[in-house]
Amino acid sequence: MPQPRVAVVFGSDSDWDVMKICVEQLRAFDLDVHVEVMSAHRSPQRVHEFARVAREEGFEVIVAGAGMSAALAGTVAASTTLPVIGVPIEGGALGGLDALLSTVQMPPGVPVGCVGIGQAGARNAALLAVSIVALHDAQLAEKYQKFRTEQANAVTERNRKLQDKLR
Amino acid sequence: MPQPRVAVVFGSDSDWDVMKICVEQLRAFDLDVHVEVMSAHRSPQRVHEFARVAREEGFEVIVAGAGMSAALAGTVAASTTLPVIGVPIEGGALGGLDALLSTVQMPPGVPVGCVGIGQAGARNAALLAVSIVALHDAQLAEKYQKFRTEQANAVTERNRKLQDKLR
Amino acid sequence: MPQPRVAVVFGSDSDWDVMKICVEQLRAFDLDVHVEVMSAHRSPQRVHEFARVAREEGFEVIVAGAGMSAALAGTVAASTTLPVIGVPIEGGALGGLDALLSTVQMPPGVPVGCVGIGQAGARNAALLAVSIVALHDAQLAEKYQKFRTEQANAVTERNRKLQDKLR
Amino acid sequence: MPQPRVAVVFGSDSDWDVMKICVEQLRAFDLDVHVEVMSAHRSPQRVHEFARVAREEGFEVIVAGAGMSAALAGTVAASTTLPVIGVPIEGGALGGLDALLSTVQMPPGVPVGCVGIGQAGARNAALLAVSIVALHDAQLAEKYQKFRTEQANAVTERNRKLQDKLR
Amino acid sequence: MPQPRVAVVFGSDSDWDVMKICVEQLRAFDLDVHVEVMSAHRSPQRVHEFARVAREEGFEVIVAGAGMSAALAGTVAASTTLPVIGVPIEGGALGGLDALLSTVQMPPGVPVGCVGIGQAGARNAALLAVSIVALHDAQLAEKYQKFRTEQANAVTERNRKLQDKLR
Amino acid sequence: MPQPRVAVVFGSDSDWDVMKICVEQLRAFDLDVHVEVMSAHRSPQRVHEFARVAREEGFEVIVAGAGMSAALAGTVAASTTLPVIGVPIEGGALGGLDALLSTVQMPPGVPVGCVGIGQAGARNAALLAVSIVALHDAQLAEKYQKFRTEQANAVTERNRKLQDKLR
Amino acid sequence: MPQPRVAVVFGSDSDWDVMKICVEQLRAFDLDVHVEVMSAHRSPQRVHEFARVAREEGFEVIVAGAGMSAALAGTVAASTTLPVIGVPIEGGALGGLDALLSTVQMPPGVPVGCVGIGQAGARNAALLAVSIVALHDAQLAEKYQKFRTEQANAVTERNRKLQDKLR
Amino acid sequence: MPQPRVAVVFGSDSDWDVMKICVEQLRAFDLDVHVEVMSAHRSPQRVHEFARVAREEGFEVIVAGAGMSAALAGTVAASTTLPVIGVPIEGGALGGLDALLSTVQMPPGVPVGCVGIGQAGARNAALLAVSIVALHDAQLAEKYQKFRTEQANAVTERNRKLQDKLR
Repeated sequence: MPQPRVAVVFGSDSDWDVMKICVEQLRAFDLDVHVEVMSAHRSPQRVHEFARVAREEGFEVIVAGAGMSAALAGTVAASTTLPVIGVPIEGGALGGLDALLSTVQMPPGVPVGCVGIGQAGARNAALLAVSIVALHDAQLAEKYQKFRTEQANAVTERNRKLQDKLR
Repeated sequence: MPQPRVAVVFGSDSDWDVMKICVEQLRAFDLDVHVEVMSAHRSPQRVHEFARVAREEGFEVIVAGAGMSAALAGTVAASTTLPVIGVPIEGGALGGLDALLSTVQMPPGVPVGCVGIGQAGARNAALLAVSIVALHDAQLAEKYQKFRTEQANAVTERNRKLQDKLR
Repeated sequence: MPQPRVAVVFGSDSDWDVMKICVEQLRAFDLDVHVEVMSAHRSPQRVHEFARVAREEGFEVIVAGAGMSAALAGTVAASTTLPVIGVPIEGGALGGLDALLSTVQMPPGVPVGCVGIGQAGARNAALLAVSIVALHDAQLAEKYQKFRTEQANAVTERNRKLQDKLR
Repeated sequence: MPQPRVAVVFGSDSDWDVMKICVEQLRAFDLDVHVEVMSAHRSPQRVHEFARVAREEGFEVIVAGAGMSAALAGTVAASTTLPVIGVPIEGGALGGLDALLSTVQMPPGVPVGCVGIGQAGARNAALLAVSIVALHDAQLAEKYQKFRTEQANAVTERNRKLQDKLR
Repeated sequence: MPQPRVAVVFGSDSDWDVMKICVEQLRAFDLDVHVEVMSAHRSPQRVHEFARVAREEGFEVIVAGAGMSAALAGTVAASTTLPVIGVPIEGGALGGLDALLSTVQMPPGVPVGCVGIGQAGARNAALLAVSIVALHDAQLAEKYQKFRTEQANAVTERNRKLQDKLR
Repeated sequence: MPQPRVAVVFGSDSDWDVMKICVEQLRAFDLDVHVEVMSAHRSPQRVHEFARVAREEGFEVIVAGAGMSAALAGTVAASTTLPVIGVPIEGGALGGLDALLSTVQMPPGVPVGCVGIGQAGARNAALLAVSIVALHDAQLAEKYQKFRTEQANAVTERNRKLQDKLR
Repeated sequence: MPQPRVAVVFGSDSDWDVMKICVEQLRAFDLDVHVEVMSAHRSPQRVHEFARVAREEGFEVIVAGAGMSAALAGTVAASTTLPVIGVPIEGGALGGLDALLSTVQMPPGVPVGCVGIGQAGARNAALLAVSIVALHDAQLAEKYQKFRTEQANAVTERNRKLQDKLR
Repeated sequence: MPQPRVAVVFGSDSDWDVMKICVEQLRAFDLDVHVEVMSAHRSPQRVHEFARVAREEGFEVIVAGAGMSAALAGTVAASTTLPVIGVPIEGGALGGLDALLSTVQMPPGVPVGCVGIGQAGARNAALLAVSIVALHDAQLAEKYQKFRTEQANAVTERNRKLQDKLR
């Protein structure tokens, strides 16, 4: 089995409902994915160890999803020079605004590319990871281009169905 | 020199203007303070090492100030069982709301006691630390009680001055 | 029966669903807890009387939970020099943002250590109280350290289960 | 000197710049005003004592201004059955949103009538107090009606000046 | 039948669920209430006509509830010198924050006393109206004082029940 | 002098700095503009009278700018069937969020087309008014098309200057 | 069949529940409506092509509904000089605040008239479109005036029913 | 001159103060940068043309900065399969919250990696771009690793200086 080029990590069971959308989207592109539960606050050393060797283990992109004071993406980014994509997960009283600000407002020097809150963000995290890996993988680039074209066509198709309904 | 019982840590030069209020308030109670610049994102291993041994080194409370995606207090709390007080520092576009939510919205299992944003919070972080240390330090407890009584009297005094001005 | 070292107070029936998590978490550490319904707005004198003598009655930490214009933690803190932990409780139209800001944005001079909104915050309030009491209770410190280690292990365990599911 | 029917209270020196607008507006209606610095957090017992006897001392309305976790209006309201008007005062990182929510989001059972943030609110607090006192003071009612009429005329006058400028 | 001293107005059917709490609370004090559906945006002239003559018709307080761009309280206040209490009603996407800001942030010169969002606010609007009318109605003042005392006692009672449950 | 087709109204002197951008932009298209200071809260009857006859007087679009609890656009819209454009004006503690929500969150049945906060919004209000009037004014339509083309060209020009600077 | 003068466009199936209210309201005025699914992000070229020729095809107003980073209205406005009305659609974690700000905060030079979030906004978008088309369609103007009068009467009717219920 | 692998685009002169930090940071890594002013709203076709051919022209990453209803990053992403990094730029009344939400809350299917608001974000956009390009450029990877190490050392150095100051 080849070494996965993308890792998807998150901190708790409740995040899986969101993050599995990311994992499934990556697999839909035939990408192998390393999935791991790790927590910036509950198992910080595992996060550090994972991030520290992620590049030499062959990863190219790391996607990290977390809610509330969402420190996971930033903690991963602190210990690697790989591109890190953060997925803020909604939950609790503030509807994900806490997770969004915690993920996106990184101090200068340690970058995280943040996507939208929740399921939309989880899917886009996968696509952003694909766009990065595809820079040097012509076959994946082609698949992604096809996905985007089909997506545009699907809008036309939805419109056709709406016209039928409206008639 | 005795081992300081309180540590005040923060991540960047720009935080000092706020955090020195905390340090000065602690010193006003004749408390020795360990002050150190460390960054959850730029020097995460130092944060971990510091937090991991903080209890055995004799610290009783750790105050951590940070802005933006303020991960410092949570990162310290992740590696110690000491009480950790977080000071959200304002700055940038969102006026400290990002730092507040990042500091206060900790996931269950790793507690941080968060105070208000900026200078008011920094002073209160010192007083909260004093209230904790004073639980087993009768002399400090007395000083803190005196501080609070004088503070109440100062309100009366300010009122007296206002009455003079209004006359 | 020994005097409880931790008090958990809150203002209305609707807060109990959140605050019982705090009480249960404290009891899981074999800590005796004084629980009392009192309201900063509806029974302010009881709050004042409770807070004024809390230290001499032997309490070491007070946890106060409240929603909306959450004045309870601050009102308690105004009449005691003990460490006070505030739990903002969500409810109503603003999702707990009102309770959070009311609890955390204390003016300089009267500190409250605020935890996250709702159930996550209630659990962390208990753990923060434990971390304070444990400073001079070696047995409790050991229990808390064990709790934190098991919590880290639980992440590993959850990851193992996820790997099984993903296989 | 007759007993003032309106009291204006606030907690710190920095509130005076805002609250003096309230006091001056009340005096412009020839109303005597009791002004006092008192703090819900720093001198809570004075607040309680003041509020408890305010009705029997002859007050009809109490205006309370405070910033941050603005507990003053609610604390006054907790100990009196007089109408209480709260003025949220801006300041610090959150621009007065904290003071607004703390003042307005009172739990059911203890009412506060909240006006806008800062100087506009301070002036309106005076006018709201006037409208209450004027219910049983025909002379004041007439003055207030005249104020409102002149205010409407001032809009016409400002428009006339603008037309001159635009010509 | 005596002329009601309190009017409760609101703009749409959907507001009734909230505003009936206000009406019922007023009636619990044996106060007659004028209730009327009127809309600042859909029937502005009726609002103006009502407000313009409200004082001479014998009203002492007007409570106005509205959601979204909640202009009703301000529109009423624009055409009367009576005290006006605004109730922001939650609803729609922003959870009542729109109604709160629209109601409370009145420009200087036309005061509205705003209470909390939704049902808690509706009840407090009634109590604030009671506190105003009671200034010159000793019997109502006594009833309101009794209500407040019973409310304080209810907290004690709730605490007693909780103690039973905890035993 | 022909009857102006566009009216620009606003409630206070402090709004003029923003609204004059709207007026100047309209005049740059050689449009005659009726400008008038009127206030939804301080001179509500003038607003109603103006709006009620605006259509028969020949106006085609009304632009209304206001800050805080910005009721002007909605109050105008309540009394006319002409298209009304609202400009939320920043000011005070909340940076215009209050004015934005008050202007845009109109209840169903009385429409307001809201533009952005402050000067950007004021300019766009003028352009939106132009786009409406231009529907039946070919000369104006041509001028507006030219404005938009020049605006696109200005981007190219700015880019050219940047390239020079970067060289 | 005559060329529709109003177009209603939106980007995804989930928007239809909101936008059909707009379409139905337009049809209730016997207006023909062009309805089309198109996405600023998924089919940007279709949006551009549609907007570029919308004027010469005979459209007078374009209504565009979108959620999240709601770019549709702005993207349409970027390629046409017709009046564009934006409907922010709620959805996801932030309750439509993201869609509102994305729709309303257009940069100077490209105007969008934004209505309220969700269903209330969708209905008002239709009415605003009607008010624009009715400027040069006396029959439509009459219908719209009748709609508004009936709407005002409906408030009176609702009030009458409430009085019955309250008796 | 080799083809630049990174493009930095933004829509207006006022963005340059922020975006030049991004450009300078990229150049500090000896990366050639294509810089261009283009506007999603004022010159949408140029944006489309640029994005459509960006991949075949040899770009690997596109950084897009914009304020307010910040559509640029999303509009670029809509027409390319390259990784796109969005920089929300503060400005105007809402402090960049509008730009943040417009940039980050992309609908599923078209990904943007969003960094923090303003200058911190601009620097991190450069570093994120570097991390992506460095995946297949060992020399750049080494430089970036060195940058990160020096950055960690700088924290230690700043701490040393603080200790001197505190002595």
